[in-house]
Amino acid sequence: IEAGDDTTLRVEMEDLYPADISGILYELDTDQAHYLLNLLDHTVGAEIISNLDPTVRVDLLKTFTSEELAPFINQMDSDDAVDVLNEQPIQVREEVIALLEDREQARFILDLLHYDEDVAGGLMQKELIKISVNLTVNACIEEIRDQAENVENVYAVYVVDDLGKLLGLVSLKKIVLARKTARIADIYDDDIVYVETYRPAAEVAEVMQKYDLDAVPVVNVQKRLLGRITIDDIVDLITEQAEEDIQVISGLSGEVEEDDTIWARSKVQLPWLVAGAVGSLLAATVINGFQSELGKIAALAAFIPIIGSTGGNVGIQTSSLILQSLSDTSGLNATLGQRLLRTLLVAIINGLVVGLIAGTYTFLIGEPRLFFVVAMSLLAVVLLASFMGTVTPLLLNRIGINPAVASGPFITTANDLIGIGVYFLIADALLAEL
Amino acid sequence: IEAGDDTTLRVEMEDLYPADISGILYELDTDQAHYLLNLLDHTVGAEIISNLDPTVRVDLLKTFTSEELAPFINQMDSDDAVDVLNEQPIQVREEVIALLEDREQARFILDLLHYDEDVAGGLMQKELIKISVNLTVNACIEEIRDQAENVENVYAVYVVDDLGKLLGLVSLKKIVLARKTARIADIYDDDIVYVETYRPAAEVAEVMQKYDLDAVPVVNVQKRLLGRITIDDIVDLITEQAEEDIQVISGLSGEVEEDDTIWARSKVQLPWLVAGAVGSLLAATVINGFQSELGKIAALAAFIPIIGSTGGNVGIQTSSLILQSLSDTSGLNATLGQRLLRTLLVAIINGLVVGLIAGTYTFLIGEPRLFFVVAMSLLAVVLLASFMGTVTPLLLNRIGINPAVASGPFITTANDLIGIGVYFLIADALLAEL
Repeated sequence: IEAGDDTTLRVEMEDLYPADISGILYELDTDQAHYLLNLLDHTVGAEIISNLDPTVRVDLLKTFTSEELAPFINQMDSDDAVDVLNEQPIQVREEVIALLEDREQARFILDLLHYDEDVAGGLMQKELIKISVNLTVNACIEEIRDQAENVENVYAVYVVDDLGKLLGLVSLKKIVLARKTARIADIYDDDIVYVETYRPAAEVAEVMQKYDLDAVPVVNVQKRLLGRITIDDIVDLITEQAEEDIQVISGLSGEVEEDDTIWARSKVQLPWLVAGAVGSLLAATVINGFQSELGKIAALAAFIPIIGSTGGNVGIQTSSLILQSLSDTSGLNATLGQRLLRTLLVAIINGLVVGLIAGTYTFLIGEPRLFFVVAMSLLAVVLLASFMGTVTPLLLNRIGINPAVASGPFITTANDLIGIGVYFLIADALLAEL
Repeated sequence: IEAGDDTTLRVEMEDLYPADISGILYELDTDQAHYLLNLLDHTVGAEIISNLDPTVRVDLLKTFTSEELAPFINQMDSDDAVDVLNEQPIQVREEVIALLEDREQARFILDLLHYDEDVAGGLMQKELIKISVNLTVNACIEEIRDQAENVENVYAVYVVDDLGKLLGLVSLKKIVLARKTARIADIYDDDIVYVETYRPAAEVAEVMQKYDLDAVPVVNVQKRLLGRITIDDIVDLITEQAEEDIQVISGLSGEVEEDDTIWARSKVQLPWLVAGAVGSLLAATVINGFQSELGKIAALAAFIPIIGSTGGNVGIQTSSLILQSLSDTSGLNATLGQRLLRTLLVAIINGLVVGLIAGTYTFLIGEPRLFFVVAMSLLAVVLLASFMGTVTPLLLNRIGINPAVASGPFITTANDLIGIGVYFLIADALLAEL
């Protein structure tokens, strides 16, 4: 197709949804994609570029001049435009802004560039419909006609006073059904949920989920209406957050995809592998210190795997439960003491069960003298791992580190090391007569 | 407050959002919550009950008679009503449906009860506004007035033909801006994305995210419009799915929360702990088989932890990357061969790095003769764990099991066992002269 004629291509593309054209772009190399995008209507192209995977987008837009890029940026929602521009070198960013035909868009973008990506201000778009509380429904419809061109999804019209302070909203449904001469002041809903620009993104997502909102207005400290955040951005945010958590739990130290280069993959996998190796070598040092015991009872070595894996598994399970309650909005607020007590009781049951299973095994291999060593060690390991699994995520959360780290290789390695230490200490104490 | 007077309470509750009243309910015991809910307006109460955590809701609704429950169900969106009724014993379900005042609601619920929870039909609500393509805008506004009472968020009006087949939609924005005499046939948008009732929930979520939809219409095989799915349900679905994945990866065998009973927690933690213990005892059997080698070189035992933890970590990292590309909609479609080749190349780099670190350690502890044993074993372990981490999730996905299982204790235990086996086999071969 690619070597073919432009008109046919253009006609074919017109029949497709932008999201489907994105799918096609992923299959093309960057030069072909560049060529195809330039054939398209700028509005459609803008939507496609907004929805591309950021890594693909960065590569693709490298092939665009600022003059080629500007018309697309011109047509984007302001929040998407800022996201795309933030990925560009500073020179390209400034050139593109200078080249924008729509000067309002340029002003929107300059406003939004101030905010951090992970607060409400960085998520919001400037496109919205706001009307003065003094208008009638008829005048309001005229306002919508004027303003609606740039606004993709008009969920509601925001009502402001003369100073631009947010007062409330009128749903489109209400406007459709209202008498044309009714005053906005009489029909608007002042029971409105809003967020301030500085609120963290995660909190915005929580608020929108809690109140089932399609869009939430963003205000500054004086309650002046500055923008709005729509639910589609929150859906993307939640998906990304979940992916990131799983990545952290899996011990990947950065964002990477299966089809990245071999080096890129190795780079995010190695840090935790090396950290895990160092931790395990510390455990090795402990084991080496008990060489004489091992020399006497070689069967002691057989229980090293169960000590390590049980500690790791319990640690991950416990920290995952704590993570879940940390992120739960309907959150119970148990004190640390209560949490630990409950967790300890669960640990005693689990520790006894696993300890008895492994203890039985000592009889099977003809080493009954290890029964108490193995059973007690496992109980101790489960208790310690539960304690670590409870305290570590709470601590990390307190000091502002993503607590999911505590479900990953960190806690596994730590528990491995602690477990081995406890095991040999107990062995040493109980088998002193040897 | 609870022992106090009803009027004050009622007035206080009127000032709160339903979502905030839910927050209060979580703090009360079920009898108090029951009492409070019965004080509230049924519409507000219905919204609160819809949004409660299902486990809390089941306990709470046990205290309600069918007569008390019916007025709330009457006011719910049909999809929420079905969710709540599905949690009730079949007798209560039928009594409540028989008691519903709104017979249309009863019909909606009976329709929806047919569908599985995890397909589009089970997610949809019957509340929507549909109009015939033959109407004018003015007649359409009248239709909206009639139908809108039951519909919470009217994103758009669906356009159908005389047989009820879905033709397209008109956004509310367009209706606000259209001339009153315009015909719907001339202004509606026939470029509409829809899903069939039997489509899996995950696919619906994907479609809505891909096309940035606020609501998607659901049709039967004849393309007759049956209902719609709104974005707030999809947000809940995505959040639940992510929680479930993390749970599976963490080795919890069922849904549980930190504040569940000690027994409930133990019950979801024990299955994988026991499975892990059994796996580790198999590894113990392998180690026991090499007792004579261990007797000669006690330092061999020191490397058991690094073999186990490295295998586990690599397995989790690799399977997590595969999981990610399985769930990625813009998905590359690499063949199994290509995937394995890339993964193997990454594994060689990682295996060499970890192998050399551990190898160096053999010199530090004065056992240089173990250098090749340890380094080669780790390289082999990383290669095997990468292979397992790639193949297992793909296999599980093929046979319809949640592939996240492969990131959990299953793969860790398997890799532990394989790793120990490989390690002692290599040790046996290379140290044959001992």
